[in-house]
Amino acid sequence: MNALAPGAVMGILGGGQLGRMLSHAAARLGFDVHIFTDDEDSPAARVSARVTVGDYHDRTALTVFAQDVHVVTTEFENVPADTAQALRDAGAIVAPNPAALAIAQDRLLEKQFFNELGIATAPFEAVESQADLDAALAKIGAPAILKTRRLGYDGLGQVRIKSTDDARDAFARVGGKPAILEGFCTFEREVSIIAARGANKQVAFFPLCENEHKNGILARTIAPARVDESVAKAAQAHAAAVMDRLDYVGVLTIEFFLMAGGALVANEMAPRVHNSGHWTIEAALTSQFEQHIRAVAGWPLGPTDLICAAEMVNLIGEDANAWAALAADPNARVHFYGKRNVRAGRKMGHVTRLKPRD
Amino acid sequence: MNALAPGAVMGILGGGQLGRMLSHAAARLGFDVHIFTDDEDSPAARVSARVTVGDYHDRTALTVFAQDVHVVTTEFENVPADTAQALRDAGAIVAPNPAALAIAQDRLLEKQFFNELGIATAPFEAVESQADLDAALAKIGAPAILKTRRLGYDGLGQVRIKSTDDARDAFARVGGKPAILEGFCTFEREVSIIAARGANKQVAFFPLCENEHKNGILARTIAPARVDESVAKAAQAHAAAVMDRLDYVGVLTIEFFLMAGGALVANEMAPRVHNSGHWTIEAALTSQFEQHIRAVAGWPLGPTDLICAAEMVNLIGEDANAWAALAADPNARVHFYGKRNVRAGRKMGHVTRLKPRD
Repeated sequence: MNALAPGAVMGILGGGQLGRMLSHAAARLGFDVHIFTDDEDSPAARVSARVTVGDYHDRTALTVFAQDVHVVTTEFENVPADTAQALRDAGAIVAPNPAALAIAQDRLLEKQFFNELGIATAPFEAVESQADLDAALAKIGAPAILKTRRLGYDGLGQVRIKSTDDARDAFARVGGKPAILEGFCTFEREVSIIAARGANKQVAFFPLCENEHKNGILARTIAPARVDESVAKAAQAHAAAVMDRLDYVGVLTIEFFLMAGGALVANEMAPRVHNSGHWTIEAALTSQFEQHIRAVAGWPLGPTDLICAAEMVNLIGEDANAWAALAADPNARVHFYGKRNVRAGRKMGHVTRLKPRD
Repeated sequence: MNALAPGAVMGILGGGQLGRMLSHAAARLGFDVHIFTDDEDSPAARVSARVTVGDYHDRTALTVFAQDVHVVTTEFENVPADTAQALRDAGAIVAPNPAALAIAQDRLLEKQFFNELGIATAPFEAVESQADLDAALAKIGAPAILKTRRLGYDGLGQVRIKSTDDARDAFARVGGKPAILEGFCTFEREVSIIAARGANKQVAFFPLCENEHKNGILARTIAPARVDESVAKAAQAHAAAVMDRLDYVGVLTIEFFLMAGGALVANEMAPRVHNSGHWTIEAALTSQFEQHIRAVAGWPLGPTDLICAAEMVNLIGEDANAWAALAADPNARVHFYGKRNVRAGRKMGHVTRLKPRD
């Protein structure tokens, strides 16, 4: 595709904070943004030129939306397959492509895909029944973790299995849905790579970042990760392989476990900008949001150099009530997402602290 | 006033690029933005939660607007006095305060105000007739420049007078409107200070910046300015005096001529964010836009430290047609304002280039 000129319309599926920050980046480059969301009062719509509030399965609404925009991208991976199909039927360019979304939506396909590319994962087995689970547990051993194949995020749809006792009703506890059993990884650190691939097949990588989770939700990211250069290079090679195989356009994130000894084990991928890349807004020459917009607009990718080391802390639930203290903290670059109600576990905003290099 | 919590509504008068960048900064801090503009399709409205398209003299529309917002600020100094009054009558907090707007709208009041505070200006005389002009020219001498007192910007409403001959119809050429004659300053450089004052009377200053104009329009800014520290300190003292006298809340800009020998001569002030401060988006810890929003929201001011030296180049008129080359320039952080039509002299966007310090 030809590069989109400023003034073109960028369609974004999803109205959350990732859509909001994508919209900001798109506007800065001169694009008008049209948000499609099922949320009547979404964070992204409030900073965008146009919004369609509709169901993701509403073919008519999707068709009208597709005809208004020059390209469609997404802020979430769980775009229903028929949504993407309806958009393509209406003539829309969808980036990243639906094949990438389909793999990222399914933990089993995702792990198989990683392994096909020679990227290590935790041991895993498909589970479609309690009998499958028992067999898988015998093979992999406890501790292990049972996860639904689809629609899981931030620790939802997961059951930890510490012993055979825990396994007894575990399949029922994930809703009796197709699942996978994953072996436990005793890792040293969690890291993620935010990568991008342009329409011209150019690839770029932000410095590897290091993540801490609490209760299954990202709590803190530091960049750059405290790892050997060889680890960062290996993560880049894995991301490049994934993006090339998928003929990917846009930003893609892979989360890895870093094992003692330096091996990387892929945990999951997100075909989108990612919470662990929010620090790039202040601390990299191009933000992950601008990078994604550049890619899907057919622009050359921007430079990913670190301006200075950074730490990003999520504001989860009631953390957001500390806004006055954060506003007074000279080291805190404060981001609030405009969500109306504070709820436990809800990502309300984040704070980035820059640490100029010595 | 108490600090506004995220979720509050920030009203902005004006729909141009300054309003657009203010809106981005306000949203990042969690505020909803409501734009009031007379432009049906404005750059600022397209990135904001709400817009009222109305005439600045429409009391009814202004009253409804005032009732929707927690505070009103402006992106331009030429807010009609009755607009500000209508907003205050409707109970709105207006920041900066109308007294500051009134002074900045009138070149005569502005220069008198500077002089009262001991801030040097070019010699000037009030001109209300051709006879006044002749008398003023006899006093100040040619070359000089005749400027309307009100509604001038980017070189409009000005006539250069190189000799007595030029003066003959000059008063008619500025529309026969109240004007001032200013003596010419043979300066070494043009510099500007972007300053801020909070609701708590705290003041902060961005590093002094250095400006180049072409055809009366800002073409290029570099920061920090290549001046002695004593010059920067003098500019800060002047800005502090201006803001304190006006009990000012928000960002305020003063443009100075830097004379051989280091003296500063005030040219004009803008009671708002300023084109010469756009580099702060990437190169300062807090941008001028966030700083202004912090001030009018009653938040503490943010740190103004330079992250690295920077250059900002305006994209004027057809400069914007070079978007593809700019998109491919790894050193260019590109900003387009979403203006629909390229016109000569129109500010279409800007580019910031970071120059990391050695």
